[in-house]
Amino acid sequence: MTVSPTNSAPVVRTRASTALYTDHYELTMLQAALHSGAAHRKSVFEAFARRLPEGRRYGVVAGTGRLLESLENFRFGAEQLDYLSAAGVVDTLTLDWLADFRFGGNVWGYAEGEAYFPHSPILIVEGTFAEACILETLVLSILNHDSAIASAASRMTGAAGSRPCIEMGSRRTQEEAAVAAARAAIIGGFASTSNLEAGRRYGVQTVGTAAHSFTLLHDTERDAFAAQVATLGAGTSLLVDTYDVERGVRTAVEVAGPELGAVRLDSGDLVAQARWVRQLLDDLGNHNTRIVVTSDLDEFAIGSLASAPVDSYGVGTSLVTGSGAPTAGLVYKLVSRTDDDGEFVSVAKSALNKTSRGGRKYALRRLNDAGTATAEVVGIGRSPRDDGNDRPLLQQFVSDGDILPGWTGAAGVRRAVEHHRSSMTELPGSVMRLQRGEPAIPTEYEEEP
Amino acid sequence: MTVSPTNSAPVVRTRASTALYTDHYELTMLQAALHSGAAHRKSVFEAFARRLPEGRRYGVVAGTGRLLESLENFRFGAEQLDYLSAAGVVDTLTLDWLADFRFGGNVWGYAEGEAYFPHSPILIVEGTFAEACILETLVLSILNHDSAIASAASRMTGAAGSRPCIEMGSRRTQEEAAVAAARAAIIGGFASTSNLEAGRRYGVQTVGTAAHSFTLLHDTERDAFAAQVATLGAGTSLLVDTYDVERGVRTAVEVAGPELGAVRLDSGDLVAQARWVRQLLDDLGNHNTRIVVTSDLDEFAIGSLASAPVDSYGVGTSLVTGSGAPTAGLVYKLVSRTDDDGEFVSVAKSALNKTSRGGRKYALRRLNDAGTATAEVVGIGRSPRDDGNDRPLLQQFVSDGDILPGWTGAAGVRRAVEHHRSSMTELPGSVMRLQRGEPAIPTEYEEEP
Repeated sequence: MTVSPTNSAPVVRTRASTALYTDHYELTMLQAALHSGAAHRKSVFEAFARRLPEGRRYGVVAGTGRLLESLENFRFGAEQLDYLSAAGVVDTLTLDWLADFRFGGNVWGYAEGEAYFPHSPILIVEGTFAEACILETLVLSILNHDSAIASAASRMTGAAGSRPCIEMGSRRTQEEAAVAAARAAIIGGFASTSNLEAGRRYGVQTVGTAAHSFTLLHDTERDAFAAQVATLGAGTSLLVDTYDVERGVRTAVEVAGPELGAVRLDSGDLVAQARWVRQLLDDLGNHNTRIVVTSDLDEFAIGSLASAPVDSYGVGTSLVTGSGAPTAGLVYKLVSRTDDDGEFVSVAKSALNKTSRGGRKYALRRLNDAGTATAEVVGIGRSPRDDGNDRPLLQQFVSDGDILPGWTGAAGVRRAVEHHRSSMTELPGSVMRLQRGEPAIPTEYEEEP
Repeated sequence: MTVSPTNSAPVVRTRASTALYTDHYELTMLQAALHSGAAHRKSVFEAFARRLPEGRRYGVVAGTGRLLESLENFRFGAEQLDYLSAAGVVDTLTLDWLADFRFGGNVWGYAEGEAYFPHSPILIVEGTFAEACILETLVLSILNHDSAIASAASRMTGAAGSRPCIEMGSRRTQEEAAVAAARAAIIGGFASTSNLEAGRRYGVQTVGTAAHSFTLLHDTERDAFAAQVATLGAGTSLLVDTYDVERGVRTAVEVAGPELGAVRLDSGDLVAQARWVRQLLDDLGNHNTRIVVTSDLDEFAIGSLASAPVDSYGVGTSLVTGSGAPTAGLVYKLVSRTDDDGEFVSVAKSALNKTSRGGRKYALRRLNDAGTATAEVVGIGRSPRDDGNDRPLLQQFVSDGDILPGWTGAAGVRRAVEHHRSSMTELPGSVMRLQRGEPAIPTEYEEEP
């Protein structure tokens, strides 16, 4: 079914094909493997990080729900096939195979929101080489981006403690990446986002009141505040730093009264400013008016504001760019495949410096008697021995091509938020340190005897 | 018109609404301004960079074509309005206004592919406050992302000289951002991309052959090479570093013969390796077999490979993350609006350290007699004086809501590629230096008397 452009209201697409979020070489590999017959060998691909971004103590898995949603729409329709044919990307045999393609394999992985460490098997895709190979780019694009954002978000919310963080970085990243970033931020513990499409798509809380342009639009700051309070109510947040902050705060209180919800500070020395603005608000009797700060914050700035009388943090650029690590650096590697006898053989690249461990992985988090994590245990070729109170980490997401319920949509996001929270409570206290260091727990391997 | 999920082939959406790529506060500002009446004041917003990323000598405008395509679909349909209503984002008056919304103003800006400098007025949006205000996030998301990528791409292709660069970073950025990144890379001078959706959407060249997994899938490297050559031809590129590079090169030549198109090196000390691989290929008689390198390259690595016998560069992570500057840092500011008498008044935030220059901007590039740029001249409130051979920089993209032809789609990309090439030839030689420094030309202002 194809929808043509019309002059009516916008068409909202519910089943956009994700099939061409794919690197050219996946389809040429597919073609070559279809011809050689190797395309039908059973294969296991794994997504993992060789290392965490420099100095980071943990990462946070995110994107799993989006990946499952995208997998459902990973189908080659007429537009995709016509393009591949016209551009000469692959031959007719391959086009025919793609036309019928629907992923029929199995997927396991870490629950969305889970902490991860170097070599944690975050996602395991089992199927024919053909069907697992062509998912490579989709898997990595989604997990690398979303995990990078969730990892940064988690550090920020850790630094913020009980003070809520608001995601407001949409303008500093690509427009669809912004929606994914908002979702990942929520999983990493953010309370809300400015991104309306994320609100619509995932049911997350959106917030916002006004920008400097709104003040500049009016003849005076007082006019602007009055206009805002008239329709959004005294409980709104007024941006007080367009001209002079002290005058802005006084005007805000005069206009909105004691019920003024919050003032927002978007520039200047935030620690000092927050202190005297708090004092001023208290002097004016506005003890319940909160202070929101939003000026180029990252986890370090948030940490340094811990002693300042700030009530919530708005974070933009540094959140959506992963606070120095805009991609999680996950790779997607073939670790096992069958031979002509149908027996699985472990495989790994062995030249030079990119050595990986072949063989299918299993994983659990080793916990001590206090319930604190002490190691990430990765079993190669078999499940690692469970010490008794260890926690198995792999969940099944897809069974023979069927996406299992509970991981996608708004419900999947809520589940990931909860999972992230519980995963963090289990980790040793060192995980919260912002200084550069080693992973909070070591990765240990158990190999088949 | 709404399309329901069905079990048929995927629906390809041609008119997806872009209206909710918007921060919550734009719609609450709209609501407050509709109530106060100020929403109807004529306004001028401008997108510009206060500074370039640290040490960069120029930036490259990209995203303009995508913005115009998105503007066409910036319409609030039933799904968007139902969400905004149910979530209580805005009131009924505002919903009614949004339901009828279609941008009716004017847009000017720098041609896509143009070099830019601090305070260059990259985009100017003129309309009512209401219609110009609600475009803020869309404008910035697209221009910030795409310009960051094109700016990095341009430095890389500058460092590569006549050797082609291949964009292959899709897996290291969000899946839709990957398509935009591929497009921006092409504008920045890349020859091709691995991203198939970018190929379909913008008609750009896609390339790719095989990954390590393809070699590992087969029982031997020789089997893998033979399978690839059998269907892709001897002119294909063989990845020779899965096991031992020397053996890989010898096997590749044995399998493909003298017509072997290229060998790809994806790890190791590329300078040294490229030299002895070249020697080995020559010794084997494969003088026309090219060497492609693809291992974590950035503009500095490309520069350091200038003297090595490399034929093309594949660039991934560092391209799609803007090589250290993942966002261009553009802001979108109200600089002028009418008062109650309908007269335009210049406006600018004045508190603390974020001072901007109010007033509508005009711009030209000052050229000396040799045709070399010597300054970015920004006129405030009027066009700057033309020295005779100066080049005006502002183009009109939208006239009374109508998108002018030539800037969008595949044709827009081709035009931007050409424009970037000619824009670069005009800049002084210092622009090509990779070391940190000042902008290649200064920004000068001419104010109304």
